[in-house]
Order: sequence, then structure tokens, then C-alpha cells
Amino acid sequence: MGRVICCGLGPGDPELMSVRADRLIRTASHIAYFRKKGRPGQARRIVEGMLAPNVNEYAMEYPVTTELPFDSSDYNSILASFYDDWAERIEDLARARDIVVLCEGDPFFYGSFMHLFVRLQGRAQLEVVPGIPGMTGCWNVTGVPMTWGDDVMTVVMGTMPEDALARHMTGSDALVVMKTGRNLAKIRRALEAAGRLDDAWLVERGTMPDQRVARLSEIEDNVSPYFAIVLVHGNGRRPETAE
Amino acid sequence: MGRVICCGLGPGDPELMSVRADRLIRTASHIAYFRKKGRPGQARRIVEGMLAPNVNEYAMEYPVTTELPFDSSDYNSILASFYDDWAERIEDLARARDIVVLCEGDPFFYGSFMHLFVRLQGRAQLEVVPGIPGMTGCWNVTGVPMTWGDDVMTVVMGTMPEDALARHMTGSDALVVMKTGRNLAKIRRALEAAGRLDDAWLVERGTMPDQRVARLSEIEDNVSPYFAIVLVHGNGRRPETAE
Repeated sequence: MGRVICCGLGPGDPELMSVRADRLIRTASHIAYFRKKGRPGQARRIVEGMLAPNVNEYAMEYPVTTELPFDSSDYNSILASFYDDWAERIEDLARARDIVVLCEGDPFFYGSFMHLFVRLQGRAQLEVVPGIPGMTGCWNVTGVPMTWGDDVMTVVMGTMPEDALARHMTGSDALVVMKTGRNLAKIRRALEAAGRLDDAWLVERGTMPDQRVARLSEIEDNVSPYFAIVLVHGNGRRPETAE
Repeated sequence: MGRVICCGLGPGDPELMSVRADRLIRTASHIAYFRKKGRPGQARRIVEGMLAPNVNEYAMEYPVTTELPFDSSDYNSILASFYDDWAERIEDLARARDIVVLCEGDPFFYGSFMHLFVRLQGRAQLEVVPGIPGMTGCWNVTGVPMTWGDDVMTVVMGTMPEDALARHMTGSDALVVMKTGRNLAKIRRALEAAGRLDDAWLVERGTMPDQRVARLSEIEDNVSPYFAIVLVHGNGRRPETAE
């Protein structure tokens, strides 16, 4: 019996994956990863140059669903079958050998592997190697500490309704907004309503070669790439040097 | 001119530090870390067995302050001078060579290195290597995914007033409570008020050899060790398999 080992890849820079994930990926004979149809895939790109010469690769390509609303029952059932099918295939593969599943960031933090993980309970031996979450890589590249002392930090999705976003932005010290994509204009309005827009940063592809770090108020884009996060740093209590 | 390089160590298991941090620590000639007076120190313990034979070590021992309230001006000025002095010493050391500063978890996420980082701006070349935050290691060892879909995740400190804690616990899906220590009874009451106590986990020394993972409602302790986190997992939208 083999294992299904999900390796968190961290924020994008391959040197930021853990020593354990690095070793498991370099020695893997079977490797699987999610990607959009026809794209190389971010997870696969991160491990470029690391894989063994004769590795067997399984690209788990998301069914095209852009024409369906993400809360429709059709969307739900298409994605559910997609995860069901891959769970079965990976269960079969793991009968005879270890299979490594790649996952950007940390697998348990909004990670797509979780859909396989819940399905494979009791059907395969599962192991998860945590990774540096994407947001942690992003706040690192701003060069400003994220949270101090008793700061409250809240992580919200840009897909939320504007008033709920603004409410969370008002009630928290440090802020992380993920799933920014087409929600950037809404996120900007919610930050403005919460009085936080001037402190907000946009980080695109943080820690990757083509990263972009900017003050949100200084850019005019209303759409961001998939790997983009809006951040507001906390500014909590700390021992200050007397002047 | 050398650099001051802060390496995030991750949650405790040495294999969970990044490939870059691992290499920088193994090849360092000068290494500094915070610790309580008379203790080996958690950061130093994580790198045990990794250091070069002739490494120069600088243990930055916190001044004993248990007799002072943490919001008093005496406490503040004692700690500020402590950080001032070490910033100066590290600035001096970095004139002639690289010095690696160790930091548990991620350096920019409630990390003690930030107090040196702000003081050393413009005085030394600074580099920070992110790490897996302690909370990420802790939710990993519960074996349950932390956040799904549009879940809101909030990180609060157990040192906050009970009503503020309960308010954040009510308004968020996934929860992380850090600085639990002597605040465990208060945290339990706040979770109860928010209707979240039955879903809460206590993770002590997550990913370390002596870790402990338990349902908070099943343990009676009112004090937890320093490296202990209370977690409530999110349970958001996901594509479910039809029954």
C-alpha cells in the first residue's frame, strides 16, 4: 500500500517550500496537480526542474465551467463528479505506490486538495505537508511587518457582498483579501467605506519572478490576476524607543 | 558589508522550515535568537544539530519582566532598551559579515524579530525569509481542513477582553486564538457565548515531538503552554458528492 501525500508548495518561490516537501517532490515517481485546461498550471510551474526524469505526471484539469454561476447546482455537480473521479483514480494509484499531489500555498487553507482529502478518508493513507500560505509570501514582499501585539487579523474573500466586506474591514486591525480577481473595484469601495483604502496594498504573484507590489490607491486596475491579494498591515502595541 | 537575515523557522518541526532558511542556517557563521533567561529557547532548539561546528551564537535574553504589567511604561521602556541594544549590536556585527537571526513561525506575523527590523531600517541590509506560521502547523496536525470557499478566518489574541473575543468569534467562520496561556478559561467562556465551544480544538506544540491535539471541551486545563493555539475550523461552501 502506498500513500497519498499532498505537498504544500508555498507562495511560489520554489526555495520557500519546506525541506520535507522539496525532498518528497524530488524523489516522487508519481505526481498529480490541478490546472486549468490548456494551461501549464501554477503548481506544476513551481516544481519545474525539480522532478525525477521518469516521473509519471497526472494533470487534473478542471472542467470548463465559466458559463455556469458558481452557486448553481449544475456547477456543483460537475465539480463534484470531477473530484469524485480523481479521488477514485488516485485511490487506485496509491494501492501500489506513493503518489504526491501538489498544492499551492498551504493545502488546508482554501486549498483544492481538500476536495480529494475529504473524499479519500478511509480509502487511502493520507499525509499532508503544510506550506507557507500565499498571503504570508505576499505580506513578506511588502517589506512591512503584518501583525503586532494584540492586532486582530481577518482573512476575507473578495467574492463576499460589499457591505459584509466593509464590516469585516472596519472590525479588524490587519486585513487580507483573497480572491480579488474581478472584485477589485468592490474591494476598493469597501476599503474606502471602512476608512482603510490609504493603507491597502495590492500584491500580485508575490515571491514569483514577475511579482508586483503597489499601494492599492495608486493603481487603477479593476481586475487583478488570480494570484493577487489585498493587504492592510496591523499597527498594534509595541515597545517604542523614547525620542 | 554583511546582511542581517531573519529566517522564519516554521511551526517547530525542523523539516518544515523552507529550503532557503535551512541552507542559510546550516552555512551561517553568526547566529542570534531570542530566549527567556535560563531557558534553551524554542528557536535554538528547532535548529539543534543543524549549525556549523564553529558558529558564533548570540542568545538575546529577554529582561525578566514578570513583575511588571505588560502595558506599564516601565515594561515598555525596559523592553525598548533591550531591543535598542540588540539592534546596535547586530548592526555592528553585520558590518563585517552576514548574521542570521532565528524566528519561530513567520517573522512578520507577531514575530519578535520585527522589533529589530524596524530599528535596523537604513542601518543594515535586511532580508527576511518567510516561514510557515505556527497556526498553519497547528491546523495541519488536527487533520481537518481549516478554510473552504468563502469562509472568513479571524486571528485574535487570548489577551483581548472577553466581550471583544466573543464578538469576533461570532462574526467569523474559522477562528485562530493565539496567546492562550493563562487566558484559557476566558477563551472558553467567550467561545461558549459565541456558540462555538463544541467546535474548538486546543493544539499545544503543534508539529513538535511532544504535541497535544484535543477538543477544547474535553480538557479541563485553565492554563496552556506558550506554544498553544485554539482553533475552530471553517465549514464553507464546497461541491458535495450527491448521495
